[in-house]
Amino acid sequence: MSVTAARGFRAAGVAAGLKSSGGKDVALVVNDGPGAVAAAVFTTNRVVAAPVVWSRIAVGDGIARAVVLNSGGANACTGPEGFADTHVTAEHVAERLDVSSGDVLVCSTGLIGERLDMPALTAGIDAAAAALSADGGADAAEAIMTTDTVAKTVHVQGEGWSVGGMAKGAGMLAPALATMLCVLTTDAELDAAQADAALREAARLSFDRIDSDGAMSTNDTVILLASGASGVRPEPVAFQEALTAATQQLARQLIADAEGASHDVAVTVTGATDETAALAVARAVTRSNLFKAAMFGNDPNWGRIIAAAGTVPEDVAPYDPLLLDVSVNGVQVCRAGGVGEDRSLVDLAAHREVHVEIALHAGDAPPVTVWTNDLTHDYVHENSAYST
Amino acid sequence: MSVTAARGFRAAGVAAGLKSSGGKDVALVVNDGPGAVAAAVFTTNRVVAAPVVWSRIAVGDGIARAVVLNSGGANACTGPEGFADTHVTAEHVAERLDVSSGDVLVCSTGLIGERLDMPALTAGIDAAAAALSADGGADAAEAIMTTDTVAKTVHVQGEGWSVGGMAKGAGMLAPALATMLCVLTTDAELDAAQADAALREAARLSFDRIDSDGAMSTNDTVILLASGASGVRPEPVAFQEALTAATQQLARQLIADAEGASHDVAVTVTGATDETAALAVARAVTRSNLFKAAMFGNDPNWGRIIAAAGTVPEDVAPYDPLLLDVSVNGVQVCRAGGVGEDRSLVDLAAHREVHVEIALHAGDAPPVTVWTNDLTHDYVHENSAYST
Repeated sequence: MSVTAARGFRAAGVAAGLKSSGGKDVALVVNDGPGAVAAAVFTTNRVVAAPVVWSRIAVGDGIARAVVLNSGGANACTGPEGFADTHVTAEHVAERLDVSSGDVLVCSTGLIGERLDMPALTAGIDAAAAALSADGGADAAEAIMTTDTVAKTVHVQGEGWSVGGMAKGAGMLAPALATMLCVLTTDAELDAAQADAALREAARLSFDRIDSDGAMSTNDTVILLASGASGVRPEPVAFQEALTAATQQLARQLIADAEGASHDVAVTVTGATDETAALAVARAVTRSNLFKAAMFGNDPNWGRIIAAAGTVPEDVAPYDPLLLDVSVNGVQVCRAGGVGEDRSLVDLAAHREVHVEIALHAGDAPPVTVWTNDLTHDYVHENSAYST
Repeated sequence: MSVTAARGFRAAGVAAGLKSSGGKDVALVVNDGPGAVAAAVFTTNRVVAAPVVWSRIAVGDGIARAVVLNSGGANACTGPEGFADTHVTAEHVAERLDVSSGDVLVCSTGLIGERLDMPALTAGIDAAAAALSADGGADAAEAIMTTDTVAKTVHVQGEGWSVGGMAKGAGMLAPALATMLCVLTTDAELDAAQADAALREAARLSFDRIDSDGAMSTNDTVILLASGASGVRPEPVAFQEALTAATQQLARQLIADAEGASHDVAVTVTGATDETAALAVARAVTRSNLFKAAMFGNDPNWGRIIAAAGTVPEDVAPYDPLLLDVSVNGVQVCRAGGVGEDRSLVDLAAHREVHVEIALHAGDAPPVTVWTNDLTHDYVHENSAYST
């Protein structure tokens, strides 16, 4: 499992004192090759942290040999000094690993607006470099956790190659990858263009379709490293399927660990005119606080669902409100825009997973599913100052 | 105060048994003229309740002689039968008042997806018609309350004329007037075009700038009735100012009574390139659950503020993230996109009102303010099934 599941990678995770908890907080992932292909996608927030600025440039040539990640500080909104800290971090890793600093990607996560403790971080890098191992994936996954309650890892097997990965994130998840770090590794032989295209498509179908609270963070980064150590060049379709499956499994783990949630809610839109329309309706519902609070209350409140759907402009999602059907866990509580089956037939309390299906009856686009969570007391508690 | 503050109007509010609480739930507002000018703006939600469908048509000619409003049921998602109920309601009022049903506007508020108790409603209309009085404004304002804890009324004096009004709404407030009913009255002489233009401008600068939880309801309606009973034709600018002031005062009362809120939060954006840009940034912040939860925690978390601002696309709001200043209650906690004054100088616990100012330093558009509330445990409680 994790980033060392694929051949050609070593990793480590150590405690460097950046987290007040004393837990592991510096992770290192190294691609020992023979290849050094890399691709990455980043937050679309215009306010981006120093490591995002750095890594965007560093991955521009499609090559990377290492990723260093820290929790305990986002290094965002830290000005030129913060960027200098990221630069020093990459240089320090490069020196320890004897690679170019331009081939070192940097990720940070934690509080915004505070400088990193650089002596602690560089000492942590030294310790992580010394601890690098082909079994280090689990430690690395643990070291990037912030409010996560469990480490998120994945391993998908291909024919003679595989995809491994780790992610962190337990709140602020949203389209465009809010507050989420993910490193994927593969021993497949890929060229840079294929890696980039595959990663973008996988992210679009996974991380961009989880929407925990609509926020986009300053630090979100998803990285793919390909070592080529398997010596196998996979069919593009087969590789895409494996990579998408890996990201979808990680995304599902992120939703399952979302801050304070008591329900994981899948909103599926069918019968749209096209994918854009389906996605717009699904997102309008997954972002409705009223809907999310109703889910917390185990209330299959279809009125809030269709009212949320109704906020999507007609030019984005053409449909007739009088044709909408809504099912909650298989019970069609709304039929043709009005009352359907008895809502008391829906037992939400018994299941953590809730499946909402909205049938637009407007076209024949394939179904689109967006995952979110309910809005709970614990969400409010964890995101108010009591806990930070 | 309320809808009977201006001359030429009578009103009443009675208990008809629609609300399980037994409180007043049917209101009637009658324009005794001599004029019968009317204008209205409605929710932009595509899923609209039967009374919205009816009133949109009825007000199309710029004339109305009465408004009937009920709480205890929204008559939304009730199909053709629900529209027939609204039609019967208007006919019944028309008969009692000896006017055309096409001059009767209808508003409903309450739960979605349930038919109204028509015998109770028509009996309530009879009682309200019998109780109509030039002092009935307060009763009418009380009869439209749902989860409101206080009635909302206003009276703005012009030169020889005035504007009165009432509103209800205590949650789901949003741009485009979510779950909000408002009736404004004036004894000024207006023509229909002036009334319509003035109401749209006033709503744009008031109800469209409160954003309690981002939802838009199926029933939101704002109505202006002009009796001309003062015999005075006001200067258009003076009337606009008075009407805007009236709607802003009502909007402020709605925010102050928002479900479960502990802070009223004004987000002001300065230095934008234009009003659209300023509004987009303000709304991105007022819709951020993370920001709103931080406010609840009395945490002047400027990182969440600029991260929310950063979600606005550059073509909508051009600005340089490295120039952003953010003040919270006068303390500039973020300067030039980085750490500013000590955030511990901000004492949020001591004040219900919070003023956030975001300076974009991108242009010279006038400041735009959007009001919202914090995200609290009580919000979650009141909007989950426990309370409905």
